[in-house]
Amino acid sequence: MYKIAIINGPNLNLLGEREVDIYGNISFEDYLAKLENMHPDVQLSYYQSNVEGELVNHIHTCRETVDGIVFNGAGYTHTSVAIADAIAAIKPPVIEVHISNLYGREDYRKTSLTACNCVGIITGLGLNGYHLAIEHFKHILTSEAP
Amino acid sequence: MYKIAIINGPNLNLLGEREVDIYGNISFEDYLAKLENMHPDVQLSYYQSNVEGELVNHIHTCRETVDGIVFNGAGYTHTSVAIADAIAAIKPPVIEVHISNLYGREDYRKTSLTACNCVGIITGLGLNGYHLAIEHFKHILTSEAP
Amino acid sequence: MYKIAIINGPNLNLLGEREVDIYGNISFEDYLAKLENMHPDVQLSYYQSNVEGELVNHIHTCRETVDGIVFNGAGYTHTSVAIADAIAAIKPPVIEVHISNLYGREDYRKTSLTACNCVGIITGLGLNGYHLAIEHFKHILTSEAP
Amino acid sequence: MYKIAIINGPNLNLLGEREVDIYGNISFEDYLAKLENMHPDVQLSYYQSNVEGELVNHIHTCRETVDGIVFNGAGYTHTSVAIADAIAAIKPPVIEVHISNLYGREDYRKTSLTACNCVGIITGLGLNGYHLAIEHFKHILTSEAP
Amino acid sequence: MYKIAIINGPNLNLLGEREVDIYGNISFEDYLAKLENMHPDVQLSYYQSNVEGELVNHIHTCRETVDGIVFNGAGYTHTSVAIADAIAAIKPPVIEVHISNLYGREDYRKTSLTACNCVGIITGLGLNGYHLAIEHFKHILTSEAP
Amino acid sequence: MYKIAIINGPNLNLLGEREVDIYGNISFEDYLAKLENMHPDVQLSYYQSNVEGELVNHIHTCRETVDGIVFNGAGYTHTSVAIADAIAAIKPPVIEVHISNLYGREDYRKTSLTACNCVGIITGLGLNGYHLAIEHFKHILTSEAP
Amino acid sequence: MYKIAIINGPNLNLLGEREVDIYGNISFEDYLAKLENMHPDVQLSYYQSNVEGELVNHIHTCRETVDGIVFNGAGYTHTSVAIADAIAAIKPPVIEVHISNLYGREDYRKTSLTACNCVGIITGLGLNGYHLAIEHFKHILTSEAP
Amino acid sequence: MYKIAIINGPNLNLLGEREVDIYGNISFEDYLAKLENMHPDVQLSYYQSNVEGELVNHIHTCRETVDGIVFNGAGYTHTSVAIADAIAAIKPPVIEVHISNLYGREDYRKTSLTACNCVGIITGLGLNGYHLAIEHFKHILTSEAP
Amino acid sequence: MYKIAIINGPNLNLLGEREVDIYGNISFEDYLAKLENMHPDVQLSYYQSNVEGELVNHIHTCRETVDGIVFNGAGYTHTSVAIADAIAAIKPPVIEVHISNLYGREDYRKTSLTACNCVGIITGLGLNGYHLAIEHFKHILTSEAP
Amino acid sequence: MYKIAIINGPNLNLLGEREVDIYGNISFEDYLAKLENMHPDVQLSYYQSNVEGELVNHIHTCRETVDGIVFNGAGYTHTSVAIADAIAAIKPPVIEVHISNLYGREDYRKTSLTACNCVGIITGLGLNGYHLAIEHFKHILTSEAP
Amino acid sequence: MYKIAIINGPNLNLLGEREVDIYGNISFEDYLAKLENMHPDVQLSYYQSNVEGELVNHIHTCRETVDGIVFNGAGYTHTSVAIADAIAAIKPPVIEVHISNLYGREDYRKTSLTACNCVGIITGLGLNGYHLAIEHFKHILTSEAP
Amino acid sequence: MYKIAIINGPNLNLLGEREVDIYGNISFEDYLAKLENMHPDVQLSYYQSNVEGELVNHIHTCRETVDGIVFNGAGYTHTSVAIADAIAAIKPPVIEVHISNLYGREDYRKTSLTACNCVGIITGLGLNGYHLAIEHFKHILTSEAP
Repeated sequence: MYKIAIINGPNLNLLGEREVDIYGNISFEDYLAKLENMHPDVQLSYYQSNVEGELVNHIHTCRETVDGIVFNGAGYTHTSVAIADAIAAIKPPVIEVHISNLYGREDYRKTSLTACNCVGIITGLGLNGYHLAIEHFKHILTSEAP
Repeated sequence: MYKIAIINGPNLNLLGEREVDIYGNISFEDYLAKLENMHPDVQLSYYQSNVEGELVNHIHTCRETVDGIVFNGAGYTHTSVAIADAIAAIKPPVIEVHISNLYGREDYRKTSLTACNCVGIITGLGLNGYHLAIEHFKHILTSEAP
Repeated sequence: MYKIAIINGPNLNLLGEREVDIYGNISFEDYLAKLENMHPDVQLSYYQSNVEGELVNHIHTCRETVDGIVFNGAGYTHTSVAIADAIAAIKPPVIEVHISNLYGREDYRKTSLTACNCVGIITGLGLNGYHLAIEHFKHILTSEAP
Repeated sequence: MYKIAIINGPNLNLLGEREVDIYGNISFEDYLAKLENMHPDVQLSYYQSNVEGELVNHIHTCRETVDGIVFNGAGYTHTSVAIADAIAAIKPPVIEVHISNLYGREDYRKTSLTACNCVGIITGLGLNGYHLAIEHFKHILTSEAP
Repeated sequence: MYKIAIINGPNLNLLGEREVDIYGNISFEDYLAKLENMHPDVQLSYYQSNVEGELVNHIHTCRETVDGIVFNGAGYTHTSVAIADAIAAIKPPVIEVHISNLYGREDYRKTSLTACNCVGIITGLGLNGYHLAIEHFKHILTSEAP
Repeated sequence: MYKIAIINGPNLNLLGEREVDIYGNISFEDYLAKLENMHPDVQLSYYQSNVEGELVNHIHTCRETVDGIVFNGAGYTHTSVAIADAIAAIKPPVIEVHISNLYGREDYRKTSLTACNCVGIITGLGLNGYHLAIEHFKHILTSEAP
Repeated sequence: MYKIAIINGPNLNLLGEREVDIYGNISFEDYLAKLENMHPDVQLSYYQSNVEGELVNHIHTCRETVDGIVFNGAGYTHTSVAIADAIAAIKPPVIEVHISNLYGREDYRKTSLTACNCVGIITGLGLNGYHLAIEHFKHILTSEAP
Repeated sequence: MYKIAIINGPNLNLLGEREVDIYGNISFEDYLAKLENMHPDVQLSYYQSNVEGELVNHIHTCRETVDGIVFNGAGYTHTSVAIADAIAAIKPPVIEVHISNLYGREDYRKTSLTACNCVGIITGLGLNGYHLAIEHFKHILTSEAP
Repeated sequence: MYKIAIINGPNLNLLGEREVDIYGNISFEDYLAKLENMHPDVQLSYYQSNVEGELVNHIHTCRETVDGIVFNGAGYTHTSVAIADAIAAIKPPVIEVHISNLYGREDYRKTSLTACNCVGIITGLGLNGYHLAIEHFKHILTSEAP
Repeated sequence: MYKIAIINGPNLNLLGEREVDIYGNISFEDYLAKLENMHPDVQLSYYQSNVEGELVNHIHTCRETVDGIVFNGAGYTHTSVAIADAIAAIKPPVIEVHISNLYGREDYRKTSLTACNCVGIITGLGLNGYHLAIEHFKHILTSEAP
Repeated sequence: MYKIAIINGPNLNLLGEREVDIYGNISFEDYLAKLENMHPDVQLSYYQSNVEGELVNHIHTCRETVDGIVFNGAGYTHTSVAIADAIAAIKPPVIEVHISNLYGREDYRKTSLTACNCVGIITGLGLNGYHLAIEHFKHILTSEAP
Repeated sequence: MYKIAIINGPNLNLLGEREVDIYGNISFEDYLAKLENMHPDVQLSYYQSNVEGELVNHIHTCRETVDGIVFNGAGYTHTSVAIADAIAAIKPPVIEVHISNLYGREDYRKTSLTACNCVGIITGLGLNGYHLAIEHFKHILTSEAP
């Protein structure tokens, strides 16, 4: 059974009550339950923190325990060399997910320090981006299996 | 039955024989057959051109005939205001797909003129990005259905 | 009788049905009929293409057949050295026209590669800009006549 | 009878004797007489000042007395937030006119702080640009009339 | 009794009738009466001009007659080295006030040439910013008194 | 009784002993006692942290418990998208305060990522800036009261 | 017998009649005859198009049929990622040739998107640059021969 | 007898009492008397204004009455296209003088919009720069005399 | 006996197992033992954290307890004003150490926000950089001793 | 008999033993012998120096003694205004040659200060670039001969 | 008797025969004789070199032997930190002289690395600039004398 | 016995008498004697030149005669591609040393063209930086020895 970690960055704990027109009105906890239903063949873990360094810590702990990471760095996407280095320092592949289309927002959201160390990025497809990232991990893990 | 157009930009006709380490060794035609198998409930159309203006033309023709467009503008992604305007001019939603992770390549590949007019972008997940984009269209079309 | 060519660039074939709040709801063909009525003393020709190189081709063909060109390069205004070179390569004067006020839109619409090779630019005056450009050609052609 | 104000910025009082190869050898006062002949149905007023703040003052006084303003900010076009704010602060529409084609001159003449607050811009068509701007005001004022 | 000068720059004479959603609908003259009521222990003077150089002149005249200046340079904030030099050339401290939050507006409003020569800046707190600036002058003048 | 939170960012715990020529020699705790004396009609809370994410956390906890926030992000002002997003995500208005005049210091202190999400900014007025911010909250809360 | 393709980009069809002071007054067709005389041991093919995508198409067709390509992208040199990608996608080496010295002209002509994918560049040596490029291909093809 | 105009820009009326460490403690009026003593063979006129447009006006009036202008634009040096245009619009040569060495001060003082239209610039040599500029005018006027 | 603190920033806890080609395969704990052997005359303390604010906290605690700090801010070097301010806020001198040569890596690693507040920087000399920094502290502490 | 000078800049004395993968393993002296064999009708002179000013000196000495100069400025290409001025100061035409394709290397190698003063540039064609440059000189010298 | 050194940089040895329209047709040696005649009370020394480091050397030798230096760095003005450092390292004041008006030429001639370490700069006044610089040295040396 | 070359760039011959507050008051020759005492097991050679190309020459001569180079390029650090290329062209490792902390000085001193070709950099540790660089060479040479 594949193990996939979902890691969310700052302010995503407010999902569902914050800027509803951009991010939607469902909390991530509720969505997580849906994800688990959709992927009974995957062992999902979930972590959220508003602290950059704790995200680094958690990425480190995943380095020997998971097959892939779905990561939404939120505001740290654009400012954190530390997280980018953490992603480069570990083996499991990381897919970067953003709920909104960053290209349609402020200029500083159009750069990502973390993206170049990830295998790929999914942007603007809402919470469904998390589901698609998991689908992709299942696809590549299955293809690579002997 | 949903109608989804796949539109590929310049040099993607060489897929499978060009820069195999970046783009893989399968032609898009072969992959298209796989996509059709995976999505029997979707009517897929396919168009490829190396000519910027013909891509504009084809995007125009799609404006009343499809439910969504999966678009890989390739080199025109970074230089074409004309295509960006064409996407803005039509109703059907567009998902931008790139096979390789543009953030890990030349600087000029990190900007997209077309992305801000798309609903979302999938980058770096190989040919599977096309599949995920179709999955996403099915997801939103189903949710919106009455 | 003066001969004036009107040349429209990409997406202007959708005029009247595309982004109506910016560009108005009349097609260019309908407006052309009005122009012909207003200028019975001018032989107007009209060409539209979404293909950058075909616009170059058409500008070339005009080089010995017309007295002036009214040119709306649309999205190619900001990206085409090829069209700018074509304008520089021919004799007849060119007036650049834009329907909307480019200064009130995205930053990349504020630069024009073609403008420095034109005699002048009319921006933001709607379709009436085409009429004013023709008025101007008649003014200068008349003054220059022996 | 429509009321249109023509407002000229710095150094335009020297028109006709300054840099004749760029600006021509007719004074604006002489040209104004021509304009009045061409537009007997319009009540034209004329103001010129070399002082940025006096231009702001005059734009303010026009805010309840004219139907449109033809404005050539000359050197202040590129440097005056104060005038741009004045244009934004009043109701009557403003058309920005430049005698020479700014795109063919120094780089700093290619930006306009005032243009985004105007309805449109006419550049490079010589003194005739003033005439065309008046034509345009007559066109829109007539169309809007009940 | 402390003497404080309030100096307003371009377009602030239109306060109350210009862009009411940004600047409110009360004229500065009316607000000044309120300020005088709120600060019976301060001798307030008021000056407004749309002319950059007259603002320089007035700042000069204040240099020996007031204990502090509340200055809203409006559009000249971003473009005037001359005013910045005038502020540096005089003894009385200057507090820069802006009615709206400049950080939420156009990019060119985010830089201030004058701010580095002022003791401090109050931005975005509406007309109340003038009141708070006076409060601050009273605070520091009182603390410094022997 | 109004509830106002004061939140201080990194290194402000050293206030009074750090770089005394820039920041003064009084600790914030001592100043807080003064503030409470000056504002007996306000319930003040105080929080300081050197950890970016803990500031995000604390801003979140304030979102239903206070009427306004006085926020000095110190070094994070210039680098934290995460805090800017947190401010945008909550209802209570935030006033950004800086003790020194940032415009007179290093270039990187002249930009603020957080300011555009605040109602206003007070810079360079020393510790008195906190007092003025509270004054402002009392002013707007009173005006808005039914 | 070596096979070398000469590919010319936009506006080079006007060579000999366009901007004669920069490009000379001989047409490329006439020069081609000279080249064939000078290189009887080489099978030269010639293609010119003003359409970016058709140049991409033609570069593709050369990928298995020629030993080297002499390419003058003209205006597309500075704007076309699509052509740059086409050059990277094929095996035969490409030498970029420009008739005029681009370093002595407009700033935007000083960058080349295509050059980094070519083996070398010859600039400013007039039509003779084509001859020298063919000379070079003969030199390296001969040295590499077994 | 040569006629030379000295024109001083903003804040130079405060010379002698403003920022004495940078500009010295002698007023320009006192220095002017010295200049007149040193140059009995020159008819000096003097004008100072803090208003950009009045400097434009005065430069215009000099265009037929003087043999040369010594101009210190002060703060307008770096921001005034209007004055630069005025200098370009007149015949008499202009020498730009700055009292302090602008290269040793703020970055924005290192650019001059007016300098390219002057014959030369003297910077950093104190009030003596005015004397040297007059010396130079006498030198060239004498050499050019028949 | 001198007291020297070694403080390591994010991801350095993975030293020895992360990107071995860049950082080597020895853990910092193992290296610390070596350092203690090499410097029996120095009391070394060690702290590592992935959290920016905890590094600020720890730097604060060192301000009265150590004679010098050897600091490797890793990813925070390039992004942390907060840490730079902390270094500026304390008395003990700080030497910045980087294991790899930052000048040979990504562009964003070539700037350091913290370096200007340190006494010096040692880059690219591997773990030996820590040893050399301690050597330097011993050198200056000895020279300064009475 | 034509006289052509070959001038090589810094580090080219190490050709053949330095960075062999970029520059090849033949010394320039050896190659020079080949060149002389290939061009018995040309009197070749050769000069190499690592000193910028000596290259200026040598270019000066060539100004009356040669018919053309083949110049490889190496590292000075990107930094030397002095050499660019020397090339502009002399009559004989200069062709700039680079052995490697500078467009495929570091960004700072993509600009040339000297190129705009040369007649043309040959880049990336290895040592053969020198031969082609000589060919070109023979071509133009022959055509220009009476 | 004052001792003043004149130091000229690269290509100025060609003065009088190089680009005569910019620099005039008199050699510096001839002009030097004139200078000596005009300043019999000054002991002039003269040095010219095309080598940056030799200029550094010569500036060093002047540091105890002259009362002032007139320096024209020519092309090194814009590129030499080494010369700028040499000027900063010595006591005698330096006046930077340029023959042509650098502001009317290429952009890269508008910056000076050396100017900020000089007391002043004279630009565009031809060879007379050297004379004026000597005049200035005599002026300040005389004023400072006891 | 290891052989290490110390190479100093421009103006370092004035060490001890130049800008003493930045560089200290000891000459390098005096310090060299100390270094030799501290490192009796190393054969030190010393070279200083103010000429960029002579530094290139000397680096070349070291390429087969030393085990390591301690290099302080001084002003050439920021401007010399030629020296950077020389360092890349030789085998022995180079450590770049700067006496002062470049990060605390002018902006142009924060970039180094040479650093990316060195093994490491020591900045701001005074003359002791040379000693530490030698220490490091001894450390790595010893570890690498068989």
